[in-house]
Amino acid sequence: MAGQQFLDALDQHPFFDVIALGASARSAGKTYREAITQSSGQVAWYVDASRALDRYGDMPVVDAAQLKLDGLDIIFSAVETDAARALEASYATRVPVVSTASAYRYDSDVPILIPAVNGDHSDLVKAQEKRGWRGFVVPIPNCTTTGLAIALAPLHRVFGVERAIVTSLQAVSGAGRSSGVIGLDVVDNVIPYIPGEEEKVARETCKLLGQLANDTIEPADLVVSATCTRVAVLDGHTESVNVALRTPATVEEVVDAMQAFGKDINPGTHPSAPADWLRVLDDPFRPQPRVDRDADGGMATTVGRIRLDPAMGPNGIRFVLVSHNTKMGAAKGAILVAEDLKTRGLLA
Amino acid sequence: MAGQQFLDALDQHPFFDVIALGASARSAGKTYREAITQSSGQVAWYVDASRALDRYGDMPVVDAAQLKLDGLDIIFSAVETDAARALEASYATRVPVVSTASAYRYDSDVPILIPAVNGDHSDLVKAQEKRGWRGFVVPIPNCTTTGLAIALAPLHRVFGVERAIVTSLQAVSGAGRSSGVIGLDVVDNVIPYIPGEEEKVARETCKLLGQLANDTIEPADLVVSATCTRVAVLDGHTESVNVALRTPATVEEVVDAMQAFGKDINPGTHPSAPADWLRVLDDPFRPQPRVDRDADGGMATTVGRIRLDPAMGPNGIRFVLVSHNTKMGAAKGAILVAEDLKTRGLLA
Amino acid sequence: MAGQQFLDALDQHPFFDVIALGASARSAGKTYREAITQSSGQVAWYVDASRALDRYGDMPVVDAAQLKLDGLDIIFSAVETDAARALEASYATRVPVVSTASAYRYDSDVPILIPAVNGDHSDLVKAQEKRGWRGFVVPIPNCTTTGLAIALAPLHRVFGVERAIVTSLQAVSGAGRSSGVIGLDVVDNVIPYIPGEEEKVARETCKLLGQLANDTIEPADLVVSATCTRVAVLDGHTESVNVALRTPATVEEVVDAMQAFGKDINPGTHPSAPADWLRVLDDPFRPQPRVDRDADGGMATTVGRIRLDPAMGPNGIRFVLVSHNTKMGAAKGAILVAEDLKTRGLLA
Amino acid sequence: MAGQQFLDALDQHPFFDVIALGASARSAGKTYREAITQSSGQVAWYVDASRALDRYGDMPVVDAAQLKLDGLDIIFSAVETDAARALEASYATRVPVVSTASAYRYDSDVPILIPAVNGDHSDLVKAQEKRGWRGFVVPIPNCTTTGLAIALAPLHRVFGVERAIVTSLQAVSGAGRSSGVIGLDVVDNVIPYIPGEEEKVARETCKLLGQLANDTIEPADLVVSATCTRVAVLDGHTESVNVALRTPATVEEVVDAMQAFGKDINPGTHPSAPADWLRVLDDPFRPQPRVDRDADGGMATTVGRIRLDPAMGPNGIRFVLVSHNTKMGAAKGAILVAEDLKTRGLLA
Repeated sequence: MAGQQFLDALDQHPFFDVIALGASARSAGKTYREAITQSSGQVAWYVDASRALDRYGDMPVVDAAQLKLDGLDIIFSAVETDAARALEASYATRVPVVSTASAYRYDSDVPILIPAVNGDHSDLVKAQEKRGWRGFVVPIPNCTTTGLAIALAPLHRVFGVERAIVTSLQAVSGAGRSSGVIGLDVVDNVIPYIPGEEEKVARETCKLLGQLANDTIEPADLVVSATCTRVAVLDGHTESVNVALRTPATVEEVVDAMQAFGKDINPGTHPSAPADWLRVLDDPFRPQPRVDRDADGGMATTVGRIRLDPAMGPNGIRFVLVSHNTKMGAAKGAILVAEDLKTRGLLA
Repeated sequence: MAGQQFLDALDQHPFFDVIALGASARSAGKTYREAITQSSGQVAWYVDASRALDRYGDMPVVDAAQLKLDGLDIIFSAVETDAARALEASYATRVPVVSTASAYRYDSDVPILIPAVNGDHSDLVKAQEKRGWRGFVVPIPNCTTTGLAIALAPLHRVFGVERAIVTSLQAVSGAGRSSGVIGLDVVDNVIPYIPGEEEKVARETCKLLGQLANDTIEPADLVVSATCTRVAVLDGHTESVNVALRTPATVEEVVDAMQAFGKDINPGTHPSAPADWLRVLDDPFRPQPRVDRDADGGMATTVGRIRLDPAMGPNGIRFVLVSHNTKMGAAKGAILVAEDLKTRGLLA
Repeated sequence: MAGQQFLDALDQHPFFDVIALGASARSAGKTYREAITQSSGQVAWYVDASRALDRYGDMPVVDAAQLKLDGLDIIFSAVETDAARALEASYATRVPVVSTASAYRYDSDVPILIPAVNGDHSDLVKAQEKRGWRGFVVPIPNCTTTGLAIALAPLHRVFGVERAIVTSLQAVSGAGRSSGVIGLDVVDNVIPYIPGEEEKVARETCKLLGQLANDTIEPADLVVSATCTRVAVLDGHTESVNVALRTPATVEEVVDAMQAFGKDINPGTHPSAPADWLRVLDDPFRPQPRVDRDADGGMATTVGRIRLDPAMGPNGIRFVLVSHNTKMGAAKGAILVAEDLKTRGLLA
Repeated sequence: MAGQQFLDALDQHPFFDVIALGASARSAGKTYREAITQSSGQVAWYVDASRALDRYGDMPVVDAAQLKLDGLDIIFSAVETDAARALEASYATRVPVVSTASAYRYDSDVPILIPAVNGDHSDLVKAQEKRGWRGFVVPIPNCTTTGLAIALAPLHRVFGVERAIVTSLQAVSGAGRSSGVIGLDVVDNVIPYIPGEEEKVARETCKLLGQLANDTIEPADLVVSATCTRVAVLDGHTESVNVALRTPATVEEVVDAMQAFGKDINPGTHPSAPADWLRVLDDPFRPQPRVDRDADGGMATTVGRIRLDPAMGPNGIRFVLVSHNTKMGAAKGAILVAEDLKTRGLLA
């Protein structure tokens, strides 16, 4: 699915052209359309619009392990984590890689990037030269981290964040087609656990909000605790967030900080960037995943229900956010990172 | 619906017989079956089993405002809050009332009761004699409070609870048939707000965990903050709970405290009581509302995912619970209160 | 909801400007935004885009029964059927009315219109002059009839249709907000009955496919039997259709007839018309309501799974269709009718 | 899942004891509980009650291909169709096999059995001696065939059935855990195709309603056409059925025929049999899968909305049925067949 979302997002992109498609050896030699056609005859194309399928359907698919790197300026990688470590390393010897996989996220010379949050961390890619690479690997965060880090970033800059608690209500699309059992399980149900997710959210949020110094990132001094659940929503993660700030803030000040956030990374400079990184709504019944997930092409994070939170201490606040897990939290988010790398002169 | 659940729970009850049914003036003079038959011909009976409908379907319905109080030992009230204040007062002049409505919950001479949590608060009903009543009113808590208070009660007794944060993922049945719009809204969606709910949870939890003294209840010195959401679940509220204890506790100690809770209020003494007030599960994928809501006839609260929570401070813990909102959280919970009042000699 | 869909569809319409908004007396005197704001503070705007709300939110709402008819070229009516009979008659004394209500659908001097199916029936509106009206009333069909009539029209023209059986799997949005109970009922469920729907489908399909002669419409000599069910889909009715044709047809001939249908009513002449009235898909897993409902702005009917049907006799065929019940089947369908009336010179 | 349902249904069965559990070679040597524990630690037990898991969890699992046949009186097989052909043959050399797989359903010497429909077909198992088998294989039908065949059987006996058209709205549990993608696809959606299902329904219904003669089954002279769809229901297939009878019947006569059906196969003789094979309901809003699937332990077929159907011809009738696909349509249905074989003296 992530591959399809990349194609959908790239087919009319002003910076990037798709010139090669890699997949497992099993698909090599087929056209893209053949590769996604099931034995039942169903063409497993899950993106709403078929424009990208029409454009790339006849393109040949090559074995990802045999991908010719000549002429590639960037590689977008959406492989499973297990395969990502070796595959992305082989690519990075010569070509920059932006990845949705978690394989390299926690390496000390690898930044996890969201341009408006920590675009300056991209300098760290130069440290990867020590691996003998001419390219580099930049992962985007876990899709649940993404919305949280974007919402916390302005709070951390303006007021300091001391502690954050999040309960996520995650969409099934985040589970991937390969663990489709989730779909069946969430009808009339909630699954209160997503293996590995909570640790990722805690660790990645601190790294994203941290400081780059001496070729490494000092994580933010911030305690994050996450409880990640799966609900019967197709797309769009909802997160209920409770925060202890380091300095006092009124609701209005929180709103102002959020609304001012990210204005320099916008569609004028970055084609995939949202006009508003943080849309703040007054209506207490918002944000809702079905209603808000597609705001700004699925790239905005929508925040509502901002209130003080006495249970988080004297500087406590709480809010609810919705972030599109398969757009900002996946392929389009990775493309936005690539746009930022290009803007910074880090791509050829 | 609450009325139907009362009938379903009472039709084979060892203590109570149903001898009169009250409803709005519009239904008066009809049989019960006629009263719940819609203009389309649909018999709006929503309980799975039809046994109670078979038994009470031909019973006449009287205008609740004209209900004859002679011969009644107890009245179960499930009216809308607006109507409850006057109606329950008129009943309480002569008969004890156990109510699912919130009208009286916050009055100083009124206890909110969950037998295993604060059965001793029932003594407060005697203070209602000052109103000139021979009966009294005892409300049960809001259905979201119920599971939370039961889970916090043993922690508060053993370790003390300083602060609690809850994000609820509530079932649509809690919204009642009258605001059925919720059903439509929650398909592929989450509604992040339930008007009035969060304040009720905060206030009622403190009152339930408080101390009875001098004909009033001193609320527990505890800060509760709730974010209440609605999800596409039919029955069973899921709650993600973060707690700051006053004294340190290991996960094992928390489990032990929970498992030991409520053993003296059991099916042997109270026919509607669960064998286990708190079922604690190891499986990290539990509790799930569809799987766990019906445990012990919908009267058990199921807890899982008990972990330490550094973001709540040095004594922080967190867990997830599931509680059946229309059983323990509604009619059957009210009947259990009545059973406890009878055991204490407070019913005629 | 229908009113909102009209506003959404009209706010950038090349032919029509909204100059007055009517509603119940209860809303009169409020702005449109105020009128749809609930006591909880929620602005009950259910259309995805808020553009129309931004444009019309401050427009005053008048009592529909007191609507000033001066200067109105057309009135779109989306009132409940009970109110429609009197209200639409009072409008039609002076102004043409296009209505989503069923009040006038079965009157002998009233056509039910779908432009590509029976646009020539619009001449019948002249017969309404005998009622002493200077305007007229034209209803659109029931939303379940719409897709069926569009799919059957080319078959009836080319091969003749003798009998048709349909089982509908209808979306909850068709149930309207006022009967929101449906939403709750369809989670993990199917409701096998929609009061009045099956008779409407049978009767309206015959009238739509009939012949106009002598100021009345002779219904098509066609037996239709419908079984209408409600499923957990937000928008888009799915219909499984079995047809006995009067003359033999291969699957290819059926496809050809469908694909050739309606080409003269297209976006070039009618801004709301679909480019393809009938999209025919090969993929056996299509049409699907979530995937296909929005084709051509929700105005196309998507057909798939066309097969012979021996159980319908020697000329039997069967197929599945998806039609958007709140777009082609409601407000946008009514606007398309108005566009056609204008093209035919029947509007001032 | 089917294996789990067998264990759940067998653990307190009066006739059968579970003495061996076979599975793939991958699970051999593990306990049953270990075999169903996922790498994440989740115990993949999907049956509501855990009683059978408690009882059989510690039982060793053997390689199904190495299963020792000594001492086995019957084998219940729920393997995938591809594996079933060889595996069931190897079992049948010595032991009777009742199977949920389709591998043998269409062989001329193999009956497909539903006791009340065609229990007399079980004599055909003797013809399998010609294969050199001392045991035999008896499959149950596809879960969608089951409800249809039960509803048609009394109509066929009393009035004759000439043609039948069915549109099924099938639950996701029928898709099995292995094709879990369905769960994700059916949220806010309908999938209008289930590969292979429609052919099975047509062919199996005719075989079930056929006549045994000369060691083979002459299929009923009946044309069946099925359109099989998948909807967001967890359990319970809903089927909209249109029938052309050979002789006239009133609705009352159809009801009478259905209600009289199957009375000789009842819980008194067959522990798993329903008291009512066909429950006929008057309420037009029934049957509903969530409400009716569990009737008689999931073994009853519930029918409603019986009406004449002019579009099926002069003797047309139509109705809606609900049948539990994973109870009567799977493990419990297979056990009921075994009970019937035992009653007939066909088991050792």
